[in-house]
Amino acid sequence: MTFKADMTSASETLLQAPTPALVLDEARLAANIRRMEAHLAPFGVAFRPHVKTAKSPDVLRAVLHGTGPITVSTLLEARMFAEAGFDDILYAVGIVPAKLDAVRALADAGVRMQIILDDAGVAREVADALAGQSGIAVLIEVDCDGHRSGVAPDADDLLVIGRTLADAGLFGGVLTHAGDSYGCEGADAIAAHAELERSGLVRAAGRLRAAGLPCPVISMGSTPTALFARALDGITEVRAGVYIFQDLVMAGIGVCRPDEIALSVLATVIGHQKAQGRLVIDAGWMAMSRDRGTVGQRVDQGYGLVCDVDGTIIGDLVVTGANQEHGLVGHRDGTPLDLAAYPIGTRLRVLPNHACATAAQHPAYLLTDRSGRIAARWPRFSGW
Amino acid sequence: MTFKADMTSASETLLQAPTPALVLDEARLAANIRRMEAHLAPFGVAFRPHVKTAKSPDVLRAVLHGTGPITVSTLLEARMFAEAGFDDILYAVGIVPAKLDAVRALADAGVRMQIILDDAGVAREVADALAGQSGIAVLIEVDCDGHRSGVAPDADDLLVIGRTLADAGLFGGVLTHAGDSYGCEGADAIAAHAELERSGLVRAAGRLRAAGLPCPVISMGSTPTALFARALDGITEVRAGVYIFQDLVMAGIGVCRPDEIALSVLATVIGHQKAQGRLVIDAGWMAMSRDRGTVGQRVDQGYGLVCDVDGTIIGDLVVTGANQEHGLVGHRDGTPLDLAAYPIGTRLRVLPNHACATAAQHPAYLLTDRSGRIAARWPRFSGW
Repeated sequence: MTFKADMTSASETLLQAPTPALVLDEARLAANIRRMEAHLAPFGVAFRPHVKTAKSPDVLRAVLHGTGPITVSTLLEARMFAEAGFDDILYAVGIVPAKLDAVRALADAGVRMQIILDDAGVAREVADALAGQSGIAVLIEVDCDGHRSGVAPDADDLLVIGRTLADAGLFGGVLTHAGDSYGCEGADAIAAHAELERSGLVRAAGRLRAAGLPCPVISMGSTPTALFARALDGITEVRAGVYIFQDLVMAGIGVCRPDEIALSVLATVIGHQKAQGRLVIDAGWMAMSRDRGTVGQRVDQGYGLVCDVDGTIIGDLVVTGANQEHGLVGHRDGTPLDLAAYPIGTRLRVLPNHACATAAQHPAYLLTDRSGRIAARWPRFSGW
Repeated sequence: MTFKADMTSASETLLQAPTPALVLDEARLAANIRRMEAHLAPFGVAFRPHVKTAKSPDVLRAVLHGTGPITVSTLLEARMFAEAGFDDILYAVGIVPAKLDAVRALADAGVRMQIILDDAGVAREVADALAGQSGIAVLIEVDCDGHRSGVAPDADDLLVIGRTLADAGLFGGVLTHAGDSYGCEGADAIAAHAELERSGLVRAAGRLRAAGLPCPVISMGSTPTALFARALDGITEVRAGVYIFQDLVMAGIGVCRPDEIALSVLATVIGHQKAQGRLVIDAGWMAMSRDRGTVGQRVDQGYGLVCDVDGTIIGDLVVTGANQEHGLVGHRDGTPLDLAAYPIGTRLRVLPNHACATAAQHPAYLLTDRSGRIAARWPRFSGW
């Protein structure tokens, strides 16, 4: 018995594809890519997109117009993209010695690898473990905003770590991620956070250089700060990932408009809650993810903002609740819906709160062109 | 270049396996399975486990001591389990006509299929579409607690739908799911909800039978009500899924103890937040899921409750925050942790809020025996 045949491959439009399914709007994707390129061009910095959102070599080839330098969040991403021909990879999660064998295997296969750390003890262990290894550079993770990880720009440890790595011939530079920029709202606040990120990182690089340690890579990035930075003096490289798709969390802080979001989940109306005036759709939290990133923003989008099958936002229809394979759709204010306008079988699309989390629930993207035709099915991977 | 080799296959213990990884404790799994069997045995009802939590034929073979009747939440689950030899499948999400071809393909291949619906119009369409089809029975979904879907037990539509299906030779019985039982707390409250579920469903079946419609299947279920029901008079079949693993949400309402949870995420300490006294681990929300199901319970477990590598709960250590590949671990009350007790490289295990959501983030289970050895790697699937 064989049933595994991919039924989407036989579908030509979103009215035929099995639901739920992940849809990627080719025109919006292209516009998001162009927007980042246009914003960064005047600054003359390198760009290293983060693949953790897309997890798809097909998507990244569109971003980079081929292959090129990338940022990864897992070693599986590194391996999968290396297999697809990407040979310049920054693994931007703090390394531990137990993971060095996997990094070394990539370097030995010809991939230019960069790893990061923020601890003097780990730096010592890495220096010992990688003695004589070529093809691996180590960046020091700098904490610019107290978000998560990293050495403070003014900490003594910065120079201790830099010296340890430089003595082992491994020191590559500094990196930071302004994760707290997701909590800013509006262009001015985000630009101010970008300056915090830039200035902290450049200060750290300056201290290392003053101590005689060359610091070729000075890498910063997050989608908000990459798109709204007004100065990038002293920065050599910018990173960002979610901008490729955008999402409702980004829209909520003013980084994009909702109608610029390239990613959505195709769903079918499978029932009517007549008493409550709500639709039941076949996109529950398994299809949308459990991410409720807009709950603390000014506009709570529930589990997602609802569009018609062509991707046009209907109004204030949101996924108000979700079980594993059931989503409930209603007006944001709870007013009963006119169910007759959405017969069972109707197809809808739902914009996600968080593109990284929603995309991770799906095995592939249905790439749709301007006419709504499915132009390609781009697989994506998951796991570690 | 080939890097895809599964590195876990070479690991013998949880101190060697790459992290993050999903761990399934064989002894706890067996105990959870025995507990359900022991509770239901006196009632003499059939049992049809839900595979949506495990999504793994290997796990279900342990549950059923072979193959047997199962419940699925997606057509992919139906196809994957049919391929693995399970030939009695209930698809427990409201059907729409566009999905009937996939159901018919399974029935034509010899799988005994049951589908559900709650709408008179859909019943009409299904009756027309499946005229002359063998191997497919249709159950009417009954709403016992206003949770999500279903016809009220006393609604006129119940008989209309039953008659439509019976005339087409498709009517198989009634089904309900007491989803609101997840909001009950304690044995008495859950038992009362089970009685609400039972009595509503039996009342619906009685009305159908009084109208001359035979109603062979009377199927109810949820993990809380299946484990705490005190009477199942009139019920022919019980369904449940999450009980196989259990989770912190179930523990929070008194369905299990935290140390009965069979599922956990293996993680490595990859950093120290010295100022805050928190650990950084390599299990972020991608490994734990975004599910925060305990946030509204008496004890908020953050993104998960932390155990040592042997699975023993450490105390009040929880994952207080999560980014995609970073988890922050601290005391529940925010007291700084003694970081020296958890050097970088230390391995921990994290119990999940919601087993269905956390398991869905992983490609496989590492089954561990009593000595902590990895006895097997059981693959699981995802998607639709």
